[in-house]
Amino acid sequence: MLRARIQFSFYVTGLLLCFLATVMVLPAMVDLAFHNPDTVVFLESSLATFAVGALLAVSNRSERPPTGRAFYYLLTVVSWLALGVFASVPLALSSVKLDLVDIYFEVMSGLTTTGSTVLVGLDGLPPGLLLWRSLLQWFGGIGIIAMAMIVLPALSVGGMQLFRTESSDISGKILPRARQVATVGALVYIGLTVLCAVALRLAGMNGFDAINHAMATLATGGFSTHDASLGHFNSVAIEVVTTAFMAMAALPLIYFARFIIEGRRALARDRQVRAFLITLLAAILIVTLWNAAFNHMTLAVALRHSSFAVTSVLTDTGFVTEDFSAWGSFGTGFMFFLMFVGGCAGSTAGGIKIFRWQIMLGAVRNQLRVTLSPNLVAPLSYNGKPVDTPMLAAVQTFFFLYFLSFSVLSLAVMATGLDFLSASSAVAQAMANVGPGLGQTGGPAGNFAAVPDSAKLLLVLSMLVGRLELVTVYVVLMRDFWD
Amino acid sequence: MLRARIQFSFYVTGLLLCFLATVMVLPAMVDLAFHNPDTVVFLESSLATFAVGALLAVSNRSERPPTGRAFYYLLTVVSWLALGVFASVPLALSSVKLDLVDIYFEVMSGLTTTGSTVLVGLDGLPPGLLLWRSLLQWFGGIGIIAMAMIVLPALSVGGMQLFRTESSDISGKILPRARQVATVGALVYIGLTVLCAVALRLAGMNGFDAINHAMATLATGGFSTHDASLGHFNSVAIEVVTTAFMAMAALPLIYFARFIIEGRRALARDRQVRAFLITLLAAILIVTLWNAAFNHMTLAVALRHSSFAVTSVLTDTGFVTEDFSAWGSFGTGFMFFLMFVGGCAGSTAGGIKIFRWQIMLGAVRNQLRVTLSPNLVAPLSYNGKPVDTPMLAAVQTFFFLYFLSFSVLSLAVMATGLDFLSASSAVAQAMANVGPGLGQTGGPAGNFAAVPDSAKLLLVLSMLVGRLELVTVYVVLMRDFWD
Repeated sequence: MLRARIQFSFYVTGLLLCFLATVMVLPAMVDLAFHNPDTVVFLESSLATFAVGALLAVSNRSERPPTGRAFYYLLTVVSWLALGVFASVPLALSSVKLDLVDIYFEVMSGLTTTGSTVLVGLDGLPPGLLLWRSLLQWFGGIGIIAMAMIVLPALSVGGMQLFRTESSDISGKILPRARQVATVGALVYIGLTVLCAVALRLAGMNGFDAINHAMATLATGGFSTHDASLGHFNSVAIEVVTTAFMAMAALPLIYFARFIIEGRRALARDRQVRAFLITLLAAILIVTLWNAAFNHMTLAVALRHSSFAVTSVLTDTGFVTEDFSAWGSFGTGFMFFLMFVGGCAGSTAGGIKIFRWQIMLGAVRNQLRVTLSPNLVAPLSYNGKPVDTPMLAAVQTFFFLYFLSFSVLSLAVMATGLDFLSASSAVAQAMANVGPGLGQTGGPAGNFAAVPDSAKLLLVLSMLVGRLELVTVYVVLMRDFWD
Repeated sequence: MLRARIQFSFYVTGLLLCFLATVMVLPAMVDLAFHNPDTVVFLESSLATFAVGALLAVSNRSERPPTGRAFYYLLTVVSWLALGVFASVPLALSSVKLDLVDIYFEVMSGLTTTGSTVLVGLDGLPPGLLLWRSLLQWFGGIGIIAMAMIVLPALSVGGMQLFRTESSDISGKILPRARQVATVGALVYIGLTVLCAVALRLAGMNGFDAINHAMATLATGGFSTHDASLGHFNSVAIEVVTTAFMAMAALPLIYFARFIIEGRRALARDRQVRAFLITLLAAILIVTLWNAAFNHMTLAVALRHSSFAVTSVLTDTGFVTEDFSAWGSFGTGFMFFLMFVGGCAGSTAGGIKIFRWQIMLGAVRNQLRVTLSPNLVAPLSYNGKPVDTPMLAAVQTFFFLYFLSFSVLSLAVMATGLDFLSASSAVAQAMANVGPGLGQTGGPAGNFAAVPDSAKLLLVLSMLVGRLELVTVYVVLMRDFWD
C-alpha cells in the first residue's frame, strides 16, 4: 500500500514538473524580447525540470490512483515541496546572486501566494525573473483552488466537507469531477486576470506591470515589480482597481459562475460571501474612522489608505501603499488580528477562512444556550446544509491547531532573535499567506531580507502549513500514516 | 421565574456581604495593634457592609433556591460584582488617597486572585490595608475553589462536568454535597496556608510578611507587602518555599485528601496532576537552559530565577523576583504563551487549565486519525471517564471563546494607547489571573498605576471574565437568559 502511494505521488509530481518546465518557457521568451541573458537560464532550467519530471513520471507510471485518502495527503505535500525545489532552479542560476535559503523562501512565498519577499531592488530586476515570480503566484493560485475545490472537501480537512458536492467522492470518481470543476474554475480565474490586467492598464500601468500585478492580485499573492509595492504608482485609480479585484479574488471562484446565472439571488443565498463582504466593509469602516480620528488624515485620505490596506490584509494579498504599522497601537493590533480572519473557502485567499468563523460563532451561541438549558437541541446548519458533529469537530480542531501552530512557530521565530511583534506577526502573516508583517522586521514598509536564515525557514514552514490547511501536513507527520 | 432568581441571588449575596463584614474586623484588629487610625475605617466599613448585607438577606429571604441553572449563573456574577463594590469601601475611606477606578481595580485584582496592583509604596502602607489585600485574595481563593468544585461542574461550564461527582446534581442536591466538599477543601486550604506561613517564617520572613505571603501564595494571588514583591527578600530559602507552595496551590485541593489516603498511587492515577507537574518541569528546564545560554547567568542562577518565574506564571500567582521581560525575545514570548496554560481545575490557579489542553490535544490526535481513516472510531476518555460529544464541544468552544475574548479585549486596551506587547500581555495575564504583564507598561518590574483608567476597567473585566470561566459571564449577557 505505502509503496503504491509513494509511486503514484511521484508519478503525478512528475507530470506537474513537466508542466512547470513548460511554464518556464514564458519568462525565457520575455527575457529574449528584452535581450536579457537569463533567457538561457530559463531554458536550461526548463529542460532540466522536464527531464526530471519525465523520468519520475515514466518510471512510476501507474494506471489508477491507490484507494484511500492517504495517497492524496502524500501527493499534496510531496508535490508542493518538489515544485518549490524545481521552481528555485532558474533563480539559482540567474544573473541575480542569491543564497539558497533566500531563493527557497522567495519561491515558496510565491507558490503559496504569500508574497513576502527577500529581494531588494525589484525595480531593477530582469523582466524574466519578475514574470517568473508572478507566474509562481498565479499557478500556485490555481493549485490552491484545485485543492480547495476538489481535494480538501473530499478529505474533510478542517470542515471542508461542507463544500463537497454530490459527485465529489473519494472512491475513484475524484478525477472526472475534478476536470469539470477545474474547467469552470480555470475559466473564471483566467477571465478575471485578463479583466484585471486590462483595468490596470487603463488605470495607468504599463503593460508589463499590468500583467504581473493582475496575476499577483488574482492569486491574492502580493508580489510586486517594485520595492514600494503598489505605493510606487501613487494612483487612486490603480488602487481602486486593485482593491476591487483583491476582494473578488477572495470570493469562491465557483460563485462567479453562479452569479452570472442567478444574479443577485446568488449573493443572498451564499452566507459565506455575504459574511465576507460585511466583514470587509466593517473592518474598512473601523480603520477609516480610527485613522481619521487619531492619525492626522482627512476622511477621504483615511478611506483611501484604510480600504486598500484592510482589503489587502483581509484577502491575504499583501500589496502595500502605506506603512500601516505606523497607525498606532490599535491600528497595528487590528491589522494583526485581521490576518487570522481570511477570505472565502474555494478562493486563493488564506487565513482561517470566513466559513469557519461563522460555524464557530454559531457553535458558541448554541453552546451558551445549551449551558443554560441542558435539554435544548440546537442543530447547526450552514447554507442549508446541516453541520453535523464530525464537521463541527473538524472546524473546532482546526481553530485549536491554528492557534497552537501559531504559538509554537512564533516562539521558534522569537528564538532566532526577532522581537515579539515582528516574530508573532511574521508567523501570523506567513500562516495566513498575507505577505508583509508588522514591527521592526518584515513590516509593511520593509521586507524579509534582514531576517536570519533560520527564521526564513521557519516562515517557509509556516506558509506551507497554513496554505495546506494544517491538517494535510500534520496527517503526513503522524506515525499512523506510515504504518 | 426571573423574579425568584433575582430575589434568591440577592438573598445569598446579602449573606456573603455579612460574611465579608465579619472578615473586615481582622484588619481593624491589626490596625488597632499597630496603633493605626484606619481601625475606625475598617469598623465603619464593616458595619455599613453588614447593614446592607443583612437588609438584602432579610428582605429577599427565601426558603429554597429556584430550580434550573439560570439562578446559579446570576448568583455567581452578581455576588462577585457586589463583593467587589463592598470590599472597596475600606480603601475608599482609608488614609491612603486613591481614586475609585484604582480602588476597584485593586479589589477585583485581589478577589479574582490576579494580583496586579496599582499601589506604589506598599512597604509604607498601614498594616491593616496590606492585610485586607491579602485577605481578599485568600477569601477570593475560597470562593473560586467552591465555584470550581461545586458550581461549574454542575453547570457544565467549559467541560467542567468532567469533575462532577455522583452526588453533584443541580436539582436541589447541590447544597448538601457542597457542604461536604467545601469542608474537605477548606481544611486543606487552611492547613496548607498555615504550613506555608510557618515555612516562610522559618525561611526568614517576619510574622506579618509570612502570614500575608502565605495567603497570597495559597490563593495563587500574588499580592506582596513590598513593591519589589518576593525580590525584596533576595533569599533562596524564601523562594524555594514559595515555589513549592505555589505549585501545590495549583493542584486540585481535593487531590491532597486523596494523596494522604492513597499515597503515590493518587499521583499515578490523576492525569491532570501528572500533566501539570510535567509541564512545570519542562517549562523550567527550557527557560533555565535559555537563560544559561543567552542571558549571562550561571546554570545555578538561571535555575533559581527561571524556576521561580515559571512556577509563578504557570500557577498564575504572579510573584516576581526578576524582571523576566528582560530575558530576550524568546524569554518574553515564552512567558506570554505560558500565561494561557494555567493550573489544575479544582484549584485557585487560573488560565485555560491543564485538563482542557489534554482533552484538546487528545481530540486533535483523534481528528487527525479520523481525517486519515474516516471510519475509525476513536473514543476519548479522561481519568477513566468518557469524554462525550457535549463535553468535548464545551471544551472546544471554551478555547475559541478564550482566544476571541483575548483578541477583542486586547484590541480595546490597545485603543487606550498601550503598545502591542503591553496591551496583549496585560489582557492575557488578567484573563489568566496572573498579575504582572510584559512590555513597557505593567511589566514584571512595574505595576499598573501608569495605565489609563479605561484600560484599568477593561482589565478588571478581563479578570472577571477569566476568573468566572467566560461562559458564566456570557450566559448572563445573552438575551435568552432574561426571557
